Amino acid sequence: MPTVIVEGPKIDVEKKRELVRRITEVIKEVYEIPHVTVLIKENPPENVGIDGELLLDKKRGEGVD
Amino acid sequence: MPTVIVEGPKIDVEKKRELVRRITEVIKEVYEIPHVTVLIKENPPENVGIDGELLLDKKRGEGVD
Amino acid sequence: MPTVIVEGPKIDVEKKRELVRRITEVIKEVYEIPHVTVLIKENPPENVGIDGELLLDKKRGEGVD
Amino acid sequence: MPTVIVEGPKIDVEKKRELVRRITEVIKEVYEIPHVTVLIKENPPENVGIDGELLLDKKRGEGVD
Amino acid sequence: MPTVIVEGPKIDVEKKRELVRRITEVIKEVYEIPHVTVLIKENPPENVGIDGELLLDKKRGEGVD
Amino acid sequence: MPTVIVEGPKIDVEKKRELVRRITEVIKEVYEIPHVTVLIKENPPENVGIDGELLLDKKRGEGVD
Repeated sequence: MPTVIVEGPKIDVEKKRELVRRITEVIKEVYEIPHVTVLIKENPPENVGIDGELLLDKKRGEGVD
Repeated sequence: MPTVIVEGPKIDVEKKRELVRRITEVIKEVYEIPHVTVLIKENPPENVGIDGELLLDKKRGEGVD
Repeated sequence: MPTVIVEGPKIDVEKKRELVRRITEVIKEVYEIPHVTVLIKENPPENVGIDGELLLDKKRGEGVD
Repeated sequence: MPTVIVEGPKIDVEKKRELVRRITEVIKEVYEIPHVTVLIKENPPENVGIDGELLLDKKRGEGVD
Repeated sequence: MPTVIVEGPKIDVEKKRELVRRITEVIKEVYEIPHVTVLIKENPPENVGIDGELLLDKKRGEGVD
Repeated sequence: MPTVIVEGPKIDVEKKRELVRRITEVIKEVYEIPHVTVLIKENPPENVGIDGELLLDKKRGEGVD
């Protein structure tokens, strides 16, 4: 502990490296605990719904989170 | 918020669309909050255990959830 | 399976009853599986951050999700 | 999305404020998405096991995460 | 890693001790990894729905999981 | 309920079978509830951070969890 689970879209390995490094830094400083696990969960746009619509479908129209 | 995580088996994109639309409708009406995120998690039958047995193995015999 | 986890604010027992009944109905129809577990997670406003601010602090100003 | 779930011990409200502000900043920069939800989960030491022992029991001896 | 999250009803501290000890033993042997975190989540019966009904309501009639 | 989520690295199907069988046995005995769902989540080493570093990068140097 602490364990951080990040639910987001796909990202490349360089971004994962940065994410884990920076999230861990924040957790260590706030909790004052040195052991931190981060789990990055990558969700395809057809598996995410925002306000009733699949991200997959939103993306076709506009450009969205 | 609210965020809804659905852990289930694989489903096709049309079902995902329906799932997100209907779950969001329920959440909006019950919580009276307009912003809803739904994350659909698809679990292969070899990664799910029901009462001590993999879904993969159960399926070979009968036909189950 | 399926298991549905709902992360939201506190709600009263009557709303929980409605939430579970209606979510289960949707899951059963979409997945065509009769066994559904719903876990309702109630998050106090000081434990939720939206866009960098605690819900606790947002609520003091406006009225928000 | 993205949604970040932080499983840790109890912390005070000032730390939660800092945690949410800083985690959101990291997520926004790495994912380049402005909407971020953070859920802080506070786990009592009797509900966390590290390497086979409850945190509650570990704490009695030493001082640990 | 591995991290195990157990979603169940309330249990006493002696049971938590046993749960963590035994789950950790299984994980260590199956994964051959010595570091294991277990998070015990206790769900009140009014926050759990089984097949469309709150556990709270089921318990009034019969006696159930 | 209970539902157990195991976040770990990839494992083969024989290990999954053992994991589900043994975890279920522990849960049944501790909770005295016969219905147990286990969800095995397999995380690639580039999606796991331990103490600020991706498991992917740690593995290149040493040999780690």
